[in-house]
Amino acid sequence: MPGYDTNALALAGGVGGAKLALGLAKILDPDQLTVVVNTGDDEIFYGLHVSPDLDTVMYTLAGIANPETGWGITGETFNMLERLTAYGEDTWFGLGDKDLATHIRRTNLLNNGESLSEVTSKLAAALGVEHAIVPMTDDSFRTIVDTEIGSLAFQDYFVKHRSEPKATAIRFDTNGGARPSPGFGRALSESKIIVFCPSNPYLSVAPILEVTGIRERIAGFPGKRIAVSPIIGGAAIKGPAAKLMAEFGVEPSCVDVAKQYIGLCDAFVIDNIDADRANEIDSLGMDVLVCNTIMTSKEDKMALARKVLDFALR
Amino acid sequence: MPGYDTNALALAGGVGGAKLALGLAKILDPDQLTVVVNTGDDEIFYGLHVSPDLDTVMYTLAGIANPETGWGITGETFNMLERLTAYGEDTWFGLGDKDLATHIRRTNLLNNGESLSEVTSKLAAALGVEHAIVPMTDDSFRTIVDTEIGSLAFQDYFVKHRSEPKATAIRFDTNGGARPSPGFGRALSESKIIVFCPSNPYLSVAPILEVTGIRERIAGFPGKRIAVSPIIGGAAIKGPAAKLMAEFGVEPSCVDVAKQYIGLCDAFVIDNIDADRANEIDSLGMDVLVCNTIMTSKEDKMALARKVLDFALR
Repeated sequence: MPGYDTNALALAGGVGGAKLALGLAKILDPDQLTVVVNTGDDEIFYGLHVSPDLDTVMYTLAGIANPETGWGITGETFNMLERLTAYGEDTWFGLGDKDLATHIRRTNLLNNGESLSEVTSKLAAALGVEHAIVPMTDDSFRTIVDTEIGSLAFQDYFVKHRSEPKATAIRFDTNGGARPSPGFGRALSESKIIVFCPSNPYLSVAPILEVTGIRERIAGFPGKRIAVSPIIGGAAIKGPAAKLMAEFGVEPSCVDVAKQYIGLCDAFVIDNIDADRANEIDSLGMDVLVCNTIMTSKEDKMALARKVLDFALR
Repeated sequence: MPGYDTNALALAGGVGGAKLALGLAKILDPDQLTVVVNTGDDEIFYGLHVSPDLDTVMYTLAGIANPETGWGITGETFNMLERLTAYGEDTWFGLGDKDLATHIRRTNLLNNGESLSEVTSKLAAALGVEHAIVPMTDDSFRTIVDTEIGSLAFQDYFVKHRSEPKATAIRFDTNGGARPSPGFGRALSESKIIVFCPSNPYLSVAPILEVTGIRERIAGFPGKRIAVSPIIGGAAIKGPAAKLMAEFGVEPSCVDVAKQYIGLCDAFVIDNIDADRANEIDSLGMDVLVCNTIMTSKEDKMALARKVLDFALR
């Protein structure tokens, strides 16, 4: 297996992003990869700071993610939650007992004045993760979904309401602007490739682009920028991406995801199923790679990661 | 089984106190009993407010206490703690997964501005406890043990150091005075009997007496006051009571516990084993009841509760 002589910055949300991040981590050395993760989904549950996307990426890279759900920890129990429900807490957000340790530790360290970056680094190191996992920002950042039933914080929309209410807009509450985390800024300066993992363009990638100065820095990035479509054959593998596109009056297709990355991406990866849309993406001014993008096994993840890097570096 | 036409206020610490409190709860109606519990042992672990004595009494009265330890919840798991240890937290205080729900709920409600009394009432009600369980104070109160290795917060002394360091003094850090909780004040006014449960006189009862005005109110209490010795045959059933007495230059005996309650108790209950010490306690000006005070079964607890009430009311 040939090694790569490059540094990559991967932008990721939850489950889909974590899959490609794992593929990249399996073929790049720890000093060659920084995974920058969306924190717009972060929420306080029962007084505990929960960072769902960071945890999904962290558990996936640590090899302890629940293979059936893609999130949470394998072999999880829910004894705390069961009793918390009996106490009358509204427990629509399911925290497992093992997972809980992450949130208790994170909350405790944050309350002691550490930044989310520092905390994430400690948690990941304790789990044996060698590659850098970095929150997009250490500042407060909340993704809000405006819907037919009112404005909902992300987890309220995504978990409590199962993404069912019709969305009219997505907003980001940053309290006047969220600065990029130190690790994000460093990776932007030092990386030769930016990989947009197959994450929801509205709910995972857009928040990252909303961090102060990031859209401009990616637009002016001197290296290669390549995105993998989260929409395959008009549907998302997981999550509400296709549904949101339809609600926003956009065709749920890889082409319309690509349109959102014009000026931000040099290359775009679509699935074999969407081979007939390659010309449309080409006409947007992006190089197109057509290949299998469905990642089931570890080998699938590594294979896609290789194709992405090879295409970017060709 | 004859009912009682009385109201009792029980003062309790942890395991021993909870046993007699359970016996009392089994023979008195919910409106006839208030259990006031020591909170000098309360501690913040990993950002969570833990009230060990309140929880022991609450779990015992709810019938979910671990019968082997006397504290914690039966059928407990420790998945959170195992992972928290892996994260590098110093986890000498063992929080089980089910138990954790109590602390998460408590901390969340306290942070929302509720008092410890209100929170305790909600927790106990959710567990199906009908008798009133009341913290001695809603104010900050920390029991400090001065030892040969320095001053230790109670849990630090009791759990982390397994009560091993030689104690030189016990102090109470109340930040200028802790007021009795509303329920404690009310029970003092309305009860006809005060029962000192067989709890550690230094670490469980003394803190309760240290709450502002309580020693005076018990000294002037118009009803009957009866204490059960936690020292049986020169030893404590559980915990460091006898060891502390020796370290403080006091004979570890029921007589020397009684001496600490002069002016506060009218009657004192000692175990059959200590029958030969009855005269000494009588000479302190207290009536003496000699009976079995070792509570193993539920029947033992109810039997002792009956004897205590019958003796006080005779």
